[in-house]
Amino acid sequence: MLLTVIEILGIAVAAFSGIMEAKRNSMDLIGIYTVAFMTALGGGTIRDILLNRYPIFWVIHPEYAVGIFILSVITALVLRYKQIIIRPYAIIIPDALALGLYSAIGAAYAMELNVSWFIAVLMGTITATFGGVMRDILCNKVPDIFKHGGHLYATCALSAAVMYILVKSATNDHASAATASLITATALRLLSVKFDITLPI
Amino acid sequence: MLLTVIEILGIAVAAFSGIMEAKRNSMDLIGIYTVAFMTALGGGTIRDILLNRYPIFWVIHPEYAVGIFILSVITALVLRYKQIIIRPYAIIIPDALALGLYSAIGAAYAMELNVSWFIAVLMGTITATFGGVMRDILCNKVPDIFKHGGHLYATCALSAAVMYILVKSATNDHASAATASLITATALRLLSVKFDITLPI
Amino acid sequence: MLLTVIEILGIAVAAFSGIMEAKRNSMDLIGIYTVAFMTALGGGTIRDILLNRYPIFWVIHPEYAVGIFILSVITALVLRYKQIIIRPYAIIIPDALALGLYSAIGAAYAMELNVSWFIAVLMGTITATFGGVMRDILCNKVPDIFKHGGHLYATCALSAAVMYILVKSATNDHASAATASLITATALRLLSVKFDITLPI
Repeated sequence: MLLTVIEILGIAVAAFSGIMEAKRNSMDLIGIYTVAFMTALGGGTIRDILLNRYPIFWVIHPEYAVGIFILSVITALVLRYKQIIIRPYAIIIPDALALGLYSAIGAAYAMELNVSWFIAVLMGTITATFGGVMRDILCNKVPDIFKHGGHLYATCALSAAVMYILVKSATNDHASAATASLITATALRLLSVKFDITLPI
Repeated sequence: MLLTVIEILGIAVAAFSGIMEAKRNSMDLIGIYTVAFMTALGGGTIRDILLNRYPIFWVIHPEYAVGIFILSVITALVLRYKQIIIRPYAIIIPDALALGLYSAIGAAYAMELNVSWFIAVLMGTITATFGGVMRDILCNKVPDIFKHGGHLYATCALSAAVMYILVKSATNDHASAATASLITATALRLLSVKFDITLPI
Repeated sequence: MLLTVIEILGIAVAAFSGIMEAKRNSMDLIGIYTVAFMTALGGGTIRDILLNRYPIFWVIHPEYAVGIFILSVITALVLRYKQIIIRPYAIIIPDALALGLYSAIGAAYAMELNVSWFIAVLMGTITATFGGVMRDILCNKVPDIFKHGGHLYATCALSAAVMYILVKSATNDHASAATASLITATALRLLSVKFDITLPI
């Protein structure tokens, strides 16, 4: 139940970041929806393709695609009449929670296939971060999250995936492992923003 | 038979738009062919991957890949000696017909898998438009079709897919549904260009 | 054994070119690793997806992903303290050998599926070159290898794939065909650089 709330919040936050980026590139509604969709669901899509998990999650759960469409229409309409100014701090917690959740889901799907833990970490990180990478490619810029000097982001996803795998291997309990993943991503992200921590290299 | 003519025309028009864009980016024959290939066959490739339809259509129908190669060589040779100036209006009808046809094919393939109608619309639209999106990514620009203020394009594909699904659901007849899709895409596209109709948001 | 050495060298050279490009774009370690990974393993990943070969090669051989990670960390650390200047000529031979090897592998995998020889050539070329294309897309530039006036690169991969298929069809011997492929790619690449040969169109 709580995980569902986090997932919905996470998708909304990701879709919203796609919408704003599309707007900055003067896109119309179709462009806005495409970028929002890819930002929110792109990482999971790549994970499903790489792991040969079919049907892809949003093909059998159309509510994701429909929900992002409704959000795109409403946001685009609102943006015609007034600016939406979101302080980055307002979204940092739901975004970090979602980062942890997606990392856990990606790592869990990979572990089901008995792949190496290193590959499971990659799958968690890809699930959590490649939507944003696709957003930036579509909007013709070098992906933000890879920029040196930025706050930790992919690193939080990666650490969360590592934590998921450690706890899952030790306890064989998905719920505990997912919780540990959420806490890791959120704590690391908040610490990074608060104390201006970046990767040394 | 008529559908085959439209399909060949559509592939030729898409490949040609890829060739011209590659030329504008000073690419050599290999680059030209790659961009032409992706523009013409990229949308269907993404659809096949997303729907887990294997072998991918052009892997078992090499005539697509060969035909685009021949077109690329001939066009590149001709372009060395003289400019080719195509008035946008000359290609608008075959392009719009192809848009309707690809939308119908994408939606039909999705319907075979009993997915939600919303997902079938997305698959039709992706089939018809993502080749152009891949062309623009490869040529390092923000995809044209998403630009606010442009004539309707992805919207035509989307409407055609909706029409295909409505007629197919009502009549269970693929030929009627595909015809309705072709007419919808072409009419909407021509109206958009003629009366300068764009998406309001 | 020799093929293994060539493969490792090829991956290292490709990963290294990704690392340097990521550095030029001021990426941090995560960005460096992502670009290095995609450059070295992206072509084979696309090939596996297009041919529906699962599990994808690096999912069951994590040593590829781990090796590139170690190389990324070491190179990023070294680059903090001193510049690495690699003369292009120093890597031209391992890079060309790897080009020939990947072309052979891609063509061989396609031939196993009894696809047309034209498609097998495409698969060889994609395997050998699309990592570099993905690197350039991720770093927001028009792919280098498609630029008119550049030395032959994709053409070497393509010729190597053709040679692999010819020798394999004639002799049914993978080792001879792979050797012919390696020699073709390397000879053509060296001739192109030495005598400044480019595609006429």
